[in-house]
Amino acid sequence: MKTMNIYQEGTFSDKAMKKSLVHDSPYFRIINFNFKAGQELPIHSHELEGELSIQVLEGEGEYLAQDGTLPAKAGDILVCAISEPHGIRAKTDMRVLVTIAPPL
Amino acid sequence: MKTMNIYQEGTFSDKAMKKSLVHDSPYFRIINFNFKAGQELPIHSHELEGELSIQVLEGEGEYLAQDGTLPAKAGDILVCAISEPHGIRAKTDMRVLVTIAPPL
Repeated sequence: MKTMNIYQEGTFSDKAMKKSLVHDSPYFRIINFNFKAGQELPIHSHELEGELSIQVLEGEGEYLAQDGTLPAKAGDILVCAISEPHGIRAKTDMRVLVTIAPPL
Repeated sequence: MKTMNIYQEGTFSDKAMKKSLVHDSPYFRIINFNFKAGQELPIHSHELEGELSIQVLEGEGEYLAQDGTLPAKAGDILVCAISEPHGIRAKTDMRVLVTIAPPL
């Protein structure tokens, strides 16, 4: 059993999004991404079994999908297959939590 | 691919904590629990393989563990084995997201 605080651990960078590993195990990987306004996790996919969630903790932006974008604001959560193209772009500073099961 | 908003979907009840299923698949189950101040998810465990996370979205309370309690506030995330005793109690109204991998 372990606890951490995402807001205290996760920092921002003017150069590019900041990625912090929250947890990794054979069951799931949890990653915190912090974006300054304008930064993004570019759309991508992996040919692997499994699913992931992209949860917005703070701020506002848009999810990137193969066929366009979807609004992404605090409380929103997207779930998709790891093999489906996905990404996110920040309009304001933004904290995001990604969970991948099972890990890549 | 699907999106939802945890804050819009999840309601509160004066009678007991409110549980809403966010997502369920062979890979992970995501559940939103909303607690009014004083409500709790009592400490429990299951003799199953896997891990879970308990993430505080809003509010304040305490995690329940076999050997005592740990503070739980917005941004905190606890990760433990499904077989380890775990629970949470709200001091203020509280929104929590639980992820179980693989699902029970």
